[in-house]
Amino acid sequence: MKLYDSAMAPNPRRVRVFLAEKGISVPTIQVDIGKAENRQPAYLAKNPMGGVPILELDDGTVIAETVAICRYFEEIQPKPPLMGTDARDRAIVEMWQRRMELEVAMPIMQTFRNTHAFFKGRIPQVPEYGEVCRAAATRRLEWVDGELAQREFIAGPRFTIADITLLIGIDFGRVVKIGIQPEQKNLARWYETVSSRPSAKA
Amino acid sequence: MKLYDSAMAPNPRRVRVFLAEKGISVPTIQVDIGKAENRQPAYLAKNPMGGVPILELDDGTVIAETVAICRYFEEIQPKPPLMGTDARDRAIVEMWQRRMELEVAMPIMQTFRNTHAFFKGRIPQVPEYGEVCRAAATRRLEWVDGELAQREFIAGPRFTIADITLLIGIDFGRVVKIGIQPEQKNLARWYETVSSRPSAKA
Repeated sequence: MKLYDSAMAPNPRRVRVFLAEKGISVPTIQVDIGKAENRQPAYLAKNPMGGVPILELDDGTVIAETVAICRYFEEIQPKPPLMGTDARDRAIVEMWQRRMELEVAMPIMQTFRNTHAFFKGRIPQVPEYGEVCRAAATRRLEWVDGELAQREFIAGPRFTIADITLLIGIDFGRVVKIGIQPEQKNLARWYETVSSRPSAKA
Repeated sequence: MKLYDSAMAPNPRRVRVFLAEKGISVPTIQVDIGKAENRQPAYLAKNPMGGVPILELDDGTVIAETVAICRYFEEIQPKPPLMGTDARDRAIVEMWQRRMELEVAMPIMQTFRNTHAFFKGRIPQVPEYGEVCRAAATRRLEWVDGELAQREFIAGPRFTIADITLLIGIDFGRVVKIGIQPEQKNLARWYETVSSRPSAKA
C-alpha cells in the first residue's frame, strides 16, 4: 500500500500520528499542495475531492478521508485501540472524534480557508464567515477546557483518535492565531501530555 | 435506552432510517427544536452542543452525534451490515458516508443555516457564505450523479449508511431548492430505489 501524504497539511498529519501510535510504517508519496498537485488530473482520478491524504491499497482501491484511513488501520491492527474497545466505547470515541473535528478543527480550518492569503483565488473566500468560525472555535476551546477538568483525555482515560484530531486542530490554529488561552489550565495540561508523546512529531 | 428524537430535523431521521433498516425499535422522546427545547439547560446537560438526536443508554451514558449513534447499533446488531463488512469495506463505507455528509449534506445544511429565516436571530447568518455552499452542493450532486453511473448504491453494490446520509441530505435540500436536476438520470434512479425502501418513511 501507499499513503499519499503532504508534509504541511493537517489531515495527513492526523494519519501519520495515528500510524505512529500503532507502530505501523507505510510507504509514502509526497503531494505538493502548494503547487496544487492535488488538483491535477492524475491525483483527481484517485480522489475527485482533491483532498490529502489518500491510501492506495495493493489491489488499487483508494481510501480517501482521514478517518476512513484510520479506520482501515484500526481494523487490520486493533492494538493499541485508538477508536474504542467495545460497542459503547467505540460510540463514545466516535462522538468525541466528531466533536473535535466538526466543532473545533473545522471552524479553525474554515477561519483559515476564508481569511488567509493561501486560499485567495483558490476558493471563493467569505471573510465574514471566517470570523464567525473564529468566534465559534474560540468558544469551543473554552468548552473543551471544561470537559478536560473531568478526565485525562478527550474521550476518557485512554488516548484516542479524538486527541489526535484536537492536537492537530490546535497546532494548525497557530496560522490563524486561535489557540489555548492562559486561563485554560486543563487544556494546557492535556496539550502538554499529548504533544510530548513521540507520535506528535510524526 | 432512549432516543431523543425530533420529527422535523434531518439528523434524527438518519438514525430513524438506520434503525428501520436494522429492524430495531427504541423508545423515543420528542425534542421540539422549533421551541428551542434543545437549547434548554436540561438538554444541554446531556449534549452541550445542543444537537439532536442523542441516545441515552440505561447506564446514563449519552451518545451524541448521529454517526456515533449508528455505530453503536451497528456494533450491537451487525446484521444487516450498514457500515461495511470487513476492514476494506468498512473503510470504503466510511469514506462515502463522510463524503455524503461533508461534501453534500453539510453544504445543503449550511445553505439553510446561512440563508433561511428559521435561523435568523438564532445564529450569525452570512448569506454570501450560504450561496457559496449552494454552489458547492449543486456541483457535488453533479459529481455524485457521475459516480452512480458505476454502481447501484453510493458505497458499492449494497445499501449502506452513505445512502441514508445522501437521501436525507437531498430531501432536506428542498427547503433551499437544491435537488436532483432533470439530466441527472443516475441520481434519479438511485433516489427512486432508495426512497421507495420502507425505511425511508421513518
